[in-house]
Amino acid sequence: MTFEGLELRSHIGADGTLRIGLVTVRHGAPGPGDVIIRVEAAPLNPTDHYLLTGPADQATMTASGTRERPELTMTIPAAALPFVSRRVGISMPVGAEGAGTVVAAGAGAEALVGRRVAAMAGGMFTQYRQLAARRCVVLPDSVPTARGAAMFVNPLTVLGFIETMRDEGHSALVHAAAASNLGQMLVKACLADGIPLVNIVRRPEQAAILHGIGAKLVMDSSRPDFEHELGRAVAETGARLAFDPIGGGRLAGQILAAMETASASPDGAYEHYGSAVPKGLYIYGGLDRGPTILELRFGFAWRVGGWLLFHFMARAGAERMAGLQARVLSEIDTTFASRFTRTVSLAQVLDPEVFGAFQAKSTGEKYLVSPSADV
Amino acid sequence: MTFEGLELRSHIGADGTLRIGLVTVRHGAPGPGDVIIRVEAAPLNPTDHYLLTGPADQATMTASGTRERPELTMTIPAAALPFVSRRVGISMPVGAEGAGTVVAAGAGAEALVGRRVAAMAGGMFTQYRQLAARRCVVLPDSVPTARGAAMFVNPLTVLGFIETMRDEGHSALVHAAAASNLGQMLVKACLADGIPLVNIVRRPEQAAILHGIGAKLVMDSSRPDFEHELGRAVAETGARLAFDPIGGGRLAGQILAAMETASASPDGAYEHYGSAVPKGLYIYGGLDRGPTILELRFGFAWRVGGWLLFHFMARAGAERMAGLQARVLSEIDTTFASRFTRTVSLAQVLDPEVFGAFQAKSTGEKYLVSPSADV
Repeated sequence: MTFEGLELRSHIGADGTLRIGLVTVRHGAPGPGDVIIRVEAAPLNPTDHYLLTGPADQATMTASGTRERPELTMTIPAAALPFVSRRVGISMPVGAEGAGTVVAAGAGAEALVGRRVAAMAGGMFTQYRQLAARRCVVLPDSVPTARGAAMFVNPLTVLGFIETMRDEGHSALVHAAAASNLGQMLVKACLADGIPLVNIVRRPEQAAILHGIGAKLVMDSSRPDFEHELGRAVAETGARLAFDPIGGGRLAGQILAAMETASASPDGAYEHYGSAVPKGLYIYGGLDRGPTILELRFGFAWRVGGWLLFHFMARAGAERMAGLQARVLSEIDTTFASRFTRTVSLAQVLDPEVFGAFQAKSTGEKYLVSPSADV
Repeated sequence: MTFEGLELRSHIGADGTLRIGLVTVRHGAPGPGDVIIRVEAAPLNPTDHYLLTGPADQATMTASGTRERPELTMTIPAAALPFVSRRVGISMPVGAEGAGTVVAAGAGAEALVGRRVAAMAGGMFTQYRQLAARRCVVLPDSVPTARGAAMFVNPLTVLGFIETMRDEGHSALVHAAAASNLGQMLVKACLADGIPLVNIVRRPEQAAILHGIGAKLVMDSSRPDFEHELGRAVAETGARLAFDPIGGGRLAGQILAAMETASASPDGAYEHYGSAVPKGLYIYGGLDRGPTILELRFGFAWRVGGWLLFHFMARAGAERMAGLQARVLSEIDTTFASRFTRTVSLAQVLDPEVFGAFQAKSTGEKYLVSPSADV
């Protein structure tokens, strides 16, 4: 019994050339406790960028290969090469999460054969994925495979934000780049949980999307009165914790400054070291790869840090994560429903037009990879 | 019974003009639980800047007034005026800490009359300071008044760094601008406690000062191999927490990047989201008022925040602070000895030459104000 299929790989050469292409992978019978999944759906998540393209310069992208075996090539700037030196020469699988049907199982996992399962196990941009049965979540009959394929990264990130908020004693949130697929999910989750949420977008049409799904507070950073309006919204909601996937630029400092202004002591007294009310902002992505520029005009009770789902999961522990996962499944058709705008095959991922659109991270666009589909 | 004396005040007018001058203050008999201290020594600490000059443009400084009642005037840039709007029109006392002799006491505090005491109560650049007796620390006979006057801000900040380090599970420190009076104290405290300390300075002569008091690891950021050497020192000590009084510029990011490099998994595996080892940096001052510029090249397990002694004290609570204060007194002639390079009267503080030298925050310079001294 063997299973042979295509798998997407990303490879960096010692000269800084990054190549993304397809290889053929063959699996024998799975070992004890393992299963082989025929992957039928795997979303292209922004987080997949870290492995797919790393710090490569997108402008250098060229396409080659055949229709069945296309290849994309780009260059990693010399200054960035040290940050990926440990993966030079390694053919890396990609794809954080996905779902499909179990086609084979080792000892102890036989009950899963024929069942549809989802997993956040990495390397899901592949036709056959072998992994430990305990990493699989069995999908209820009511949950379509494509929906189940996206039940981890975005939903757990959204719940991770809310849990982090509660853990740190906050009761409201600010979210930047709020019109993303994840941002829309956060709007729905905060509405469901009664959590005041201040949404920051960059364009009027993004504001319209969020208003359309019930968002109450949407601030457009392209407007001249943005800082003033943000200050009002932060004061109204009491939000002193923000999540920001942009990273680069001055927005993080603007958010903290708005929080500081809203935290001034109500008795009108001058606090010469600024407010003592804790203010925090987490950067959880890198949409803007430029430097984060903080004008320190928000006292000393502030904090900016990185936030990563996998670090949160390690802190939260298995039991708490199981509870969050159960909530995701129970609201998979409402709060945590992902909508895909396009489905592509593995080979189509490497179509420059498709790949470029994915890299552009356009608002509302979300691509689903269907590895079992023909070229 | 009245006590009349001079007091230094800082005042901002609605037009953005900041004036620093002397006023006459008169105290009647102290109320129950209060004492009046004849202030004999009060250090000029960098933290006093926040009230003394706020965000004023030092280049606009002009001197006026008489020898007995000098006055300094400077301008606050229009963009910065909103941050101090709440103190406009208020004559603010200055001077975080000081020491002197109790000359009068209200009911219940009589035992303090004639005793030498120190206090971190603000408004200590004055000839007579009235405050609650419970805020006074009685100085042992062996402790000179000038030494006692500086027993709070720098020593408690140094111990606050060490306590914060322990609270957050770290066992070594990085300190920037390490040749300051506070930095030298931190070197001695870390030597006493066996804590590995990586010192960062900007000039060879500062490195020499630190080596002279026993510092083992001193990195000069003006050297071309600085980042490499810093990386080595961070790896050697395991330091993943830094304190930085500079704030502006790129140093904070360089320190975090060095920590990230030193945190790479020892098995050589590539971690595509960076290391999961927590890395932190606290900004506790603003020597460089320019923006903090972070190049995000240190994964997601990082945190930059503000650190303020008064916030630490509030978190630590009275009992723990009393323990730290007791340690300071027991090591006031060794670890926590402040050395003053010049003693000035209240009027002399406003001598442009003296004031300018203080503002320049030159390494190793520390001024003591002797409010009881003649002009």
